[in-house]
Amino acid sequence: MKNTKTRSRPSSARRGIRTARTDSHTYSDAVADLVEIGKGFYARGWVLGTSGNFSAVISREPLRLAITSTGLDKGSLAPQQFLEMDEAANVVRGDGRPSAEALLHLAIARGVDAGAVLHTHSVWSTVLSGSHASQGGIALEGFEMLKGLEGVRTHKHREWLPILENSQDMIELGERVSKTLRDTPGIHGFLLKEHGLYTWGAGLQEAKRHVEILEFLMEVLVRSGAAQSA
Amino acid sequence: MKNTKTRSRPSSARRGIRTARTDSHTYSDAVADLVEIGKGFYARGWVLGTSGNFSAVISREPLRLAITSTGLDKGSLAPQQFLEMDEAANVVRGDGRPSAEALLHLAIARGVDAGAVLHTHSVWSTVLSGSHASQGGIALEGFEMLKGLEGVRTHKHREWLPILENSQDMIELGERVSKTLRDTPGIHGFLLKEHGLYTWGAGLQEAKRHVEILEFLMEVLVRSGAAQSA
Amino acid sequence: MKNTKTRSRPSSARRGIRTARTDSHTYSDAVADLVEIGKGFYARGWVLGTSGNFSAVISREPLRLAITSTGLDKGSLAPQQFLEMDEAANVVRGDGRPSAEALLHLAIARGVDAGAVLHTHSVWSTVLSGSHASQGGIALEGFEMLKGLEGVRTHKHREWLPILENSQDMIELGERVSKTLRDTPGIHGFLLKEHGLYTWGAGLQEAKRHVEILEFLMEVLVRSGAAQSA
Amino acid sequence: MKNTKTRSRPSSARRGIRTARTDSHTYSDAVADLVEIGKGFYARGWVLGTSGNFSAVISREPLRLAITSTGLDKGSLAPQQFLEMDEAANVVRGDGRPSAEALLHLAIARGVDAGAVLHTHSVWSTVLSGSHASQGGIALEGFEMLKGLEGVRTHKHREWLPILENSQDMIELGERVSKTLRDTPGIHGFLLKEHGLYTWGAGLQEAKRHVEILEFLMEVLVRSGAAQSA
Repeated sequence: MKNTKTRSRPSSARRGIRTARTDSHTYSDAVADLVEIGKGFYARGWVLGTSGNFSAVISREPLRLAITSTGLDKGSLAPQQFLEMDEAANVVRGDGRPSAEALLHLAIARGVDAGAVLHTHSVWSTVLSGSHASQGGIALEGFEMLKGLEGVRTHKHREWLPILENSQDMIELGERVSKTLRDTPGIHGFLLKEHGLYTWGAGLQEAKRHVEILEFLMEVLVRSGAAQSA
Repeated sequence: MKNTKTRSRPSSARRGIRTARTDSHTYSDAVADLVEIGKGFYARGWVLGTSGNFSAVISREPLRLAITSTGLDKGSLAPQQFLEMDEAANVVRGDGRPSAEALLHLAIARGVDAGAVLHTHSVWSTVLSGSHASQGGIALEGFEMLKGLEGVRTHKHREWLPILENSQDMIELGERVSKTLRDTPGIHGFLLKEHGLYTWGAGLQEAKRHVEILEFLMEVLVRSGAAQSA
Repeated sequence: MKNTKTRSRPSSARRGIRTARTDSHTYSDAVADLVEIGKGFYARGWVLGTSGNFSAVISREPLRLAITSTGLDKGSLAPQQFLEMDEAANVVRGDGRPSAEALLHLAIARGVDAGAVLHTHSVWSTVLSGSHASQGGIALEGFEMLKGLEGVRTHKHREWLPILENSQDMIELGERVSKTLRDTPGIHGFLLKEHGLYTWGAGLQEAKRHVEILEFLMEVLVRSGAAQSA
Repeated sequence: MKNTKTRSRPSSARRGIRTARTDSHTYSDAVADLVEIGKGFYARGWVLGTSGNFSAVISREPLRLAITSTGLDKGSLAPQQFLEMDEAANVVRGDGRPSAEALLHLAIARGVDAGAVLHTHSVWSTVLSGSHASQGGIALEGFEMLKGLEGVRTHKHREWLPILENSQDMIELGERVSKTLRDTPGIHGFLLKEHGLYTWGAGLQEAKRHVEILEFLMEVLVRSGAAQSA
């Protein structure tokens, strides 16, 4: 996977034509990486149906995200099925509508200064976010795998994975996401109840790693019987 | 996947030669898509043995379906292993016999005006259709994944997945399928006990999405312990 | 997969040079098919380590089998890793030793007139053959998938899958296999305790289908909780 | 997979330039094999995140290992992401740092005279090493699959898989690994609690086979309910 640079390099010529777009090269690199990530996640069953959505920050000032259009098969994404959107979820490049959950991606990109946001929708997260909803979250502790989360240095780390009630009101849900990010600093992801996982990273590589780690640990919990005893 | 057009475009020349066949292009596009769908489902273990069968409506007036021949390995389908059949399950293109369950495909194509019908035979549907048979069906509710079903707008939707007793008498079973479609409007699929899932869509993309969503939700239920506690 | 012809077509010229070998084309076709089967089974986790072994009858009179050499990675078999052996397990083509279980393949080829014998070693068969050993076998009944077994016409069929005690004495075990085939006519496979599945067919396609069906049904039983309640 | 030769063939010319490096051909062959092993293990979910690490001994006198750099995606390793290190974990070829667990690889290479060391981090080993930690290890007995472990001749073999407490102090942990290898001769692997499996072999083929066998048997135990009843 190529490095996804998060700084825009606007040329004055292009800026003259359409101010809001970022560098095409940065955009197309991010999109190419997201296409590959989609294939891999689909093969593992983490984004079946048209579930899941992915974004990468391609500019900070102003904030611009490359993001999947709504309603797509994530196993066979094409570059033209991506959009560039601004900080208010307006489309500034590409056709179609952004994912319904675009506001959550923006809330995360701003709330934790993420360079990439990945949302998967696995069997494991659906099971656990249902069984543990009344506890408000899931504690992950003692696992070596936790060391793959950015900034974690020991398996003794205790990671809290909050579970938020699901909603179809994305403005309201986006605000709860922002509040969760403020109230529980240091978390690496959260679950929406019976919906799935949101995680992020400074770049796409880190966000992909966080998906693999958190999905792995949720699978461990389910196979250890955690869903039955919750 | 290419769009599977459901309207026939008969040319008078071809019509003069063999009235009942539909446009070859429409047919071969549908078959090519079904070959790909078969490969993907086989890889996931949803059509092992020679289980499963797939069809696409390639003409409404008169009704014509492209459908898999009987007894094939769904992981390596070849275009010549498909047939075109008419509304009475007569073969009007290709060699061999249609799937034994051709009458169910016809019942669904007529009953819900489906453009494509997909039948999978997974471990999950076999387990759940056995454990829940006495309840007559399975209720799916509260899952975000439900929103991928056509027409569903919220995770609060309650989807009823009826379970029909299995039978080798396809005329009798076809009538029960038709009755189920009439009696439970709005459903997106049904199970045959210890046999598998039937689902459909306006086109192949939608039907494939419905397979993925319903198989996913059945896997969630089994892994949540639903089969043991039924 | 190409059809695996089970009749030898010895040319007098070749027969003059090495009497015992069968037609090279028949042999290499069978081997090519077995290589593909190995790849697919390995991907599903049914022949990990160097477990599993495969054979195809390439001549009846005299009896000749193409069979995997011992101790190989079944995910990356090469044609030169196969042997041709006669009815006494002597190697008549190729280098190396036949699988330790060659005598079982011969017992099955003779006992049920099989054209192909496939032995897999899955998690499902290992679990169930342990949990059900004291019952002497596993009853499979009511499943539509049973109809994929050769000669079975209805899901109401009751298939008995005998479990034999494992042994390292292949002569003794081969005799027990022969006795099991005589005493329980009509079976499509058997298990060796905590070892795996043997199944067969008139040809390789049929034997592969039987593997998929029996592995599927064992997975269904394990996921239904059968191993815990046995 | 090519044979990984464990003897160095230093040319006097190269030795004159950089004493510590071993033959380039031996090194690049080992690295090519490890790249393939990484892809396969990643596909099975045994090295998600950046977990797992692999090494091959490419010289005995002096001791030299080809080993993965730290923090890599094991599904898409490139040859330049490997290092050659000496018996004190100094890098003598390539850029970057060796895996944090390089000292464990050295302890195993010396302790059991291994030619290759593979560390996987599967769901199965994470679950079982947690559930069985208080018992100090896991007994594997009665399984035919055990015969794939080097030197084992019968399924009646009892394999002891020790579980060591996890640690971030690699010097201390390396000493405990060395002690375990001395105190329990004949073992083929060990687990680090909630961390994963270490196994080895005379060469890479054998080590890969041991991974597959031990991961398989751990999956069998978990699916048999061993984690719940421990």
